[in-house]
Formats: sequence, structure tokens, C-alpha cells
Amino acid sequence: DCIQRSVHDHAKSLAEDMVISAGNVSTSSAPFTGKLLVIPMDGSHWVGVKAIAEEMGRRGHQVTVVMPEISKRLGPGRHYRTITYPVPYDKAFLDSVMSMKDVMNKDTRPFLEKMSKKFTQIQMGSGLIHTTAESLLFNHSLITHLQQQGFDAVLTDPMIPTGSIVARKLGLPTVNLLRRIPCSLDLVSAGCPSPSSYVPRYFTGYTDKMSFKQRVINNIVALLEPLMCRFLFWRFDQITSEFLGEDVGVAEVLADSDIWLLRIDLTFEFPRPLMPNMVLVGGINCKVRNPLPDELMPWVSGEHGFVVFTFGSIVSEMPEETMTIFLEAFKQIPQKVIWRYTGPVPENVPENVKLMKWVPQNDLLGSHPGVRAFITHAGSHGLFEGLCHAVPMLMFPLYGDQSDNAQKFASREGLVEGLKEVINNPMYKENLQKLSALHNDRPVDPLELSVYWTEFVMKHKGASHLKAPVHGLNWIQYFCLDVIAFLVIVTGVFTMIVIKCFKLCFRKLSRRRKQE
Amino acid sequence: DCIQRSVHDHAKSLAEDMVISAGNVSTSSAPFTGKLLVIPMDGSHWVGVKAIAEEMGRRGHQVTVVMPEISKRLGPGRHYRTITYPVPYDKAFLDSVMSMKDVMNKDTRPFLEKMSKKFTQIQMGSGLIHTTAESLLFNHSLITHLQQQGFDAVLTDPMIPTGSIVARKLGLPTVNLLRRIPCSLDLVSAGCPSPSSYVPRYFTGYTDKMSFKQRVINNIVALLEPLMCRFLFWRFDQITSEFLGEDVGVAEVLADSDIWLLRIDLTFEFPRPLMPNMVLVGGINCKVRNPLPDELMPWVSGEHGFVVFTFGSIVSEMPEETMTIFLEAFKQIPQKVIWRYTGPVPENVPENVKLMKWVPQNDLLGSHPGVRAFITHAGSHGLFEGLCHAVPMLMFPLYGDQSDNAQKFASREGLVEGLKEVINNPMYKENLQKLSALHNDRPVDPLELSVYWTEFVMKHKGASHLKAPVHGLNWIQYFCLDVIAFLVIVTGVFTMIVIKCFKLCFRKLSRRRKQE
Repeated sequence: DCIQRSVHDHAKSLAEDMVISAGNVSTSSAPFTGKLLVIPMDGSHWVGVKAIAEEMGRRGHQVTVVMPEISKRLGPGRHYRTITYPVPYDKAFLDSVMSMKDVMNKDTRPFLEKMSKKFTQIQMGSGLIHTTAESLLFNHSLITHLQQQGFDAVLTDPMIPTGSIVARKLGLPTVNLLRRIPCSLDLVSAGCPSPSSYVPRYFTGYTDKMSFKQRVINNIVALLEPLMCRFLFWRFDQITSEFLGEDVGVAEVLADSDIWLLRIDLTFEFPRPLMPNMVLVGGINCKVRNPLPDELMPWVSGEHGFVVFTFGSIVSEMPEETMTIFLEAFKQIPQKVIWRYTGPVPENVPENVKLMKWVPQNDLLGSHPGVRAFITHAGSHGLFEGLCHAVPMLMFPLYGDQSDNAQKFASREGLVEGLKEVINNPMYKENLQKLSALHNDRPVDPLELSVYWTEFVMKHKGASHLKAPVHGLNWIQYFCLDVIAFLVIVTGVFTMIVIKCFKLCFRKLSRRRKQE
Repeated sequence: DCIQRSVHDHAKSLAEDMVISAGNVSTSSAPFTGKLLVIPMDGSHWVGVKAIAEEMGRRGHQVTVVMPEISKRLGPGRHYRTITYPVPYDKAFLDSVMSMKDVMNKDTRPFLEKMSKKFTQIQMGSGLIHTTAESLLFNHSLITHLQQQGFDAVLTDPMIPTGSIVARKLGLPTVNLLRRIPCSLDLVSAGCPSPSSYVPRYFTGYTDKMSFKQRVINNIVALLEPLMCRFLFWRFDQITSEFLGEDVGVAEVLADSDIWLLRIDLTFEFPRPLMPNMVLVGGINCKVRNPLPDELMPWVSGEHGFVVFTFGSIVSEMPEETMTIFLEAFKQIPQKVIWRYTGPVPENVPENVKLMKWVPQNDLLGSHPGVRAFITHAGSHGLFEGLCHAVPMLMFPLYGDQSDNAQKFASREGLVEGLKEVINNPMYKENLQKLSALHNDRPVDPLELSVYWTEFVMKHKGASHLKAPVHGLNWIQYFCLDVIAFLVIVTGVFTMIVIKCFKLCFRKLSRRRKQE
């Protein structure tokens, strides 16, 4: 009968999916509170996850953050409780593996030696990641404890999929916060198409307008992405199926994810297709503000303003040579310089330079009009803070292939020139103000939005109506290769039959004519 | 030097794009007000556009709605001014063309006659649409007047692309409000991919989980969509290039659009990829509320509650036979029935039925707990109102192929049974409450969101950073067919050379052996 239509079938299946949640859907206006499990990643990735955990706790949810007892940045907060688990390494080992000390050194070693060093570093880094993951997953009493807590959802950074694997084990919906996974496993798992014609692939450095040659290379990189995923996640694929006791890999586990909070913003990134369960929250850390400490007051209120200089938490110290170049350059500008630096302090620090073990970066950039420039290693949090507060930036990309750039730039002349240009040429400030206006002009603040969707997933026990049904499709089906093959064969056979028929008719006709 | 990176190139080009807008980007906190040109579509499509126009006007923007002097539903409002233009037809002609009177009749004519009648109807309908468009576009004094007003943006419904064509002529950014264009021209113009593997095509009635056979048909429909677009828009393609004096069609004009406000919602629709400039605003009309008129009070407060019955504005009257079926059915239920009906009132109306020329549908559904069911022709506005207020619905789809369903259902027994089922079986109410909770749980109200993005486009003179760069790509490039061909050829040639080399080596080797 006509009450039932496809729209209704969908609605009905949704309603059935939700039977389990019936008790929890609050129809009253009392604020919903629940239990959130947070399994974060160490390093700068922690910043955004922590912001959400704190805000969720502040709103009355019971937030539990699970972290290794040894870590670089993970730690307690005001509004969440922590559970730590033992790991088979100590702080010194962690520091040695995660240090980017070498990044600022001019590397004069031969190529092969450099490569072998890099390979060892990568191996140690990934070994550390896998060990940490295993220490959590195979800690039976911890997992049992977590199972008993009755959490409503898991918040995690799926770049390291430990949290997603736990969520599947516990049968909980997942909220992901991430920038992106380099091999595009995030997009694959979310069923999100990336047309190679206008979506530039990671590492290519292309824009959204590509020449034919660029599109060829972009397509080749796209074809290689699954290989790269295999390389990045093979060990986690093993851990996943071992821990869950089912034949699934990371891709399937990530496909369970309900909401993808992406720390990207289209003033930085090129426009691309998104799925309905992807939410853009770039700049999530911009509004997390505290008043400036008193000791900084004289440094921010000078006549010529000040410059903020941070290279993130991974560059713990730099070689004396480089240090001197920076210090000499700073001597030549009238601005004061506030420099986050954890290494040993040299003797020849100029009067206008203040070295600090830690600086309130976002507060400095955001809360004082005296800020003239921001020297950064172009990490995403720094970029977003500079963008959100419209502070001209001098960038030293230190990762991957771009460390050479930093080397080139780190001459005194280049540095002074760059600083003066950025500080005195109003074009930089004006351009950033325009971009900043675009970036900040959003209907909902990114942190607010992140909390909103986390609560949504907790309340409704997932967001299945926003997820593409890519679980049941293998890649041949996803790209309709079977259908294309079928249509080509059918068309081919049909064409052949038609041609044969014509030939037959033609022959019969010509025979008849001959007979006549 | 390293200040310039691809991220920056993008940023720079954005900043350059925006030079023109520098004066308008408000950095102060004073509310931004500007001038909005609205070119709406007649019929039910007007409801959402009107809601935005009114709200924009209420917020202090100067809103101008341009409409034909003869129309079905378009008219003045409290917060916008109107400009009307003459059209070469009268109200009686419009009514005769837009009437759906026949839809409720049992059509006993022979098939060919029926088809010919239908074809004539379609021809007259599209003729009317084209005449209306030409009456606006080729009204030189009106276009000149509009050009002089200094509008900031155009709000339109691109299903009839008149507004988009005017926007291009005036060089203004565009905000579209629409449900969808059946041939997917909206998606094509926005550069939005629709994987045939899980995005069911219009008319197929498939879900997002398709069998192989369904995927084959879905792909064939997808392949036929461009043909359908040609059929739907060939006349507008002509009008476009004639009016603009450049060799462009509707697809190119729509690709200019800055923001697509889509009246869809994922509790109804299946999840699909979206572009960053697509904003889901399904349910935009749910919160437009007024108090109920006094005369309705006794009708809504009865012990057994009430049923709302509307077939939209297009079914002006129904044949006596059908009318009797409904009235007889209503006699058998204890609920009161409020029925929107514009045709002549019969004599035998039961006591519990109130016929009205117009009913405050959304107010009835939303503001009174006594509402038990909603009998609707399943138009999108009605669907969203029923969903948003969680009112069980009895649907009579009257369009396209589904009018047969309505015929089948319109027997007295079926009607009574359906009504009793929907009113008394709590499953319907419960399911709708769950769906309604999902639908209503959104970070920003859809009308608020629509107004937000309209203001955004006015303030920033567009939203170029959210638009996919599909202008420069033809469909061969978009689907990378040239790249695929190139790669296939290169791989083929390479393989052939390798095989040839092997053969050559093999031959030489075997010759040598023979010589030995």
C-alpha cells in the first residue's frame, strides 16, 4: 500500500537501528549528559582533542582520557579524569625517538648514510607507536575496566587507530578528530570520493587547477595511495585482527566512525567533496584563551610591538650556529621577540629577545594588538592561530622534503629581510585580515561544533543516517567496475549480433540478386 | 623563497579575488546590512525563498523580490519590497495550465490519448515557464533598473534558472535555494560527484544499498541524465546565450553559484557526497509560526484530537466521486478533520469535517498536541513539517507515476483502515518521534543557516574559496578520461616494447644455440 515508500523504508530502517537508543533520546529540555571515552594521540595532535575533552567535561559530561604513563604532552586537565597504562619504555627513550633535534642541523653526511639514519628513525618511531598501542589493547584488566564503564561514545584521533579499535571492541560509536591521514585512508573509510581532476593528492604540492602533466602524476599518486596505506598500517592491520579476533583491518574499523571532525579550513585547503558526517573544525584551538602572565606584559607593550617565535614542541633545541643566526637577525629589528626554546640558553642573547621554555602562543597572537609577526614551523595549530588572529607569518616548514627550504632561509640576511618585509609591508597584514575574515565567518565556532557533534553521537548512539553505506561494497563495486564491464560486454555482444545480422541479410540479399 | 608555499598561493589568489570587496568586509562588530535581489519561482518553491526574504528584511537588509504580475502564490511580504513585470497571459490561463484537477480523476481514456494529453500539458507548462523568463530577461528597462540598484547578491531557485542568468548579467554572486534538479544539473554544476554505486538516481526509487541489477540500471540512468538535462533545459540554453550575448548554457551559469542551500535532510535522503558550498536546510519552513486563528480553536481541542488534510495548492478541486469517498471515510473516525479545499463545497459534509480555503498547516501541525495524523500529497514542505513536528502521515503521492497509487488507495475501506492504523498504532508516532529528534538535532536552525550564508555571500562578495574549480574542466578532464587513455596507451606501448625485446632476445639466443 502507498503508506510505504522508499523514503519510509529508509526512515523505518533508521528507526529500527535506533531501538537501542530509545531510552536515551531526551525529549525534555534538560541538558543531556553522558560518559565519553577519549583515546588521544601524543604530540601536537593532543591540543584539539584536549580542547574538546575539557569542554565536554565543563558541560557536565563524565570524560575519561586514557593515556600511556609516559608521554610527551598528554596529561591531566581540569574537567576530565585520566586513566594511565604502563608502557615498556622510559621518558628518555621517548624523547630520543620523538626528538627533531637533527632537523635544524646542516646534514653533510653522504646520501646513503642519511637515508639509512632516516629509515632507522622512522622504524623506531613506528615501533614506539605500535608498542604504545599494544600496551593499551592487550592490557586485559584495562579493557575490561573500560567495558564496565558504560561509555556512550569514543573520541579519538584515527591517525593512530587505537581508539577506533577499542571503540569497535566496546561496540561504541566514534567521533574522530584529525587533520588527515596522508594515504587518504580516512576518505576511503568514509566513502568520500576525491576526483583526481581537481583534488590534489598529498605530497604533490599541486593546486586544484592542474595541467595535463600534473593530472597524470596526481592520478598515479592516487593509484599508489592504497600501497602507501598498506605500508603505513600493515602492523596495525595485524594488531586489529589479533585484538578483535575477526578478520578486519584498519580500513573496516575506521569505516565504523560516525563523525569525522576535520581540522581543515577552506581558506587553506582547496575545495573538495565531503561526506555528510564530515565536519570542518579547522581553528578549533583559536578561542581557547587565558590572560597573559604578568612577566610578559613589558614584552608585549613596547612601541614597536613584538614577534612570536615558536618551532613547536618537537624542536627541543637547535645547533649553536643556527641559534646565532637567529639571534644576530633579531638584533637588527626594533621589535621585541618572544621565543619558545627549551634548549640551553646561550650567552649572547640580545636585549630585545626573551627565551622561554613555554609561551602562551595563542594568547600572545590573539589578545594583544602589538603582535607584528609570527615565526613558525608551519604546524597546523600555529597556522590556524596565525590565520584566526590575522598575524603575518614567516614559515619554516621543517618536515619531510621541506627542511631544505628552512636551511636556505636560515641565513641572517634572509631572515632580517623576511622579517622586515612581513612586518613593514602592509600587504601581508591586509591579505591575512581578508583571509582571517573568511576563516572566522562561520555559523558555529569550531570547538562548539565539535562538542555539538560529540554530544549528538552520544545522545543518538551514533549517526548512522549520515554514514555512506560503503561497508558492503568492495572497491570493484564502489567504482562500479563490474557494472562497466557488464555494460561493455552487453554493448559489445549486441553490436556483434547486429553486425552479424546485417551481414547475413546482406549476403542473402546479394545471393538472391545473383540468383535473379 | 620559503614564505611562498602552495597554501599561500591559494591564499594570495583568494586575497586578489577579494580586492573588490575590501571596502565591504566589516571588521567592526556593527551588523552588516546590504541589498539582496530575490528572483523566486512560483508555486510551493516560493515558501522557502519567501521565508529567507522575510528574515533578511527583518534583519535590516534591503530586499527586493522581482515577480511576474500574474502568479499562483507569489506576493508581497512584510519585510521586502516587490517589483512586478508584465507577462503576456492572464490568471485564468495560468490557473488552467498549473491546475492538477485531473490528477484525482480516474483516467479511463485510451493510452495514446492520455499520453498526448500529458504531452500537451507538459508543453504548455514549459511554454509558460519560458514565456515568464523571457518577460523578465528581455524587459530592458527592468534589467537596467536592477543594474542600477547596486545589489550585493541574488537569491533564487535555480530549478528555473532565470535568477542565475540575471545574476551573471549583473555580475553578482548567487545563493540558490532548491530541493534538487531532477537531471542532476545542480550536482554537475557544483562539481559534486555522485558515485553510482551508492547514490540512487532520481526516479529509480532505489535505496543506497543496491543489488547488481539495480546498480546496472542506476548507471544507465546516470548515463542518460545529460540527455534529460538537454531535454529540460534546451530552451533555457538558447535564452541564456541570447540574453547574455555569450556562448554559455545553463550549466555554466549555474556553475557560478556561490552557495547551494539544499532543502534536503538525511533523515529522508540517503547519505551522499556534498560540496563545501552545499548547505543542508531541509525543514527551513518549520519554525515560521503564527498563532492559530480563533475559529480553529474548537476544532483542535476535541477529546479525540484532529487530522490535517491538505493536497497542496495545485489540487484545486477533486471529482465528486473521490470527494465522497473521503467524506464517507471521515464519518467513520472520531477525530475532527481540517481539510484545505478550494473547490465547491458539497452538501453532505459530516459534522467532524471542516473545509477551508486555506489552512495554517505548519501552525496546526506544530503548535497543538491534539494533532493525530496528517493526510498529505507528500510535497517536500509538508513532509518536512510532518517530520519536524513528529506527526504520523498518510501520503498520497500525486505526481508522476505514483498517481495510480493514490487511485488505488482512495477507496473508503483503504482510507479508513489507513487512518485508523496511523492514528491508533503507536509505532508510527514513536518512529516519527525518533526521526524527528534526529532531524531537529542540528547545530543551527535551517532558516538561520540560510540567512547566515546569504549574508556571507553579500559580505564577502561570493564564496569562491568554497567552490570547486570545475569551470575550467570539460567532462573528459573532469573524469580524467584523457589521463586514463594516456596511461593505458603508455602502459600498452611499454608492455609491447618489453615483450618485443624479450622475443628478440629469445630469438637471438635460440639462433645462437642452433648455430652452436
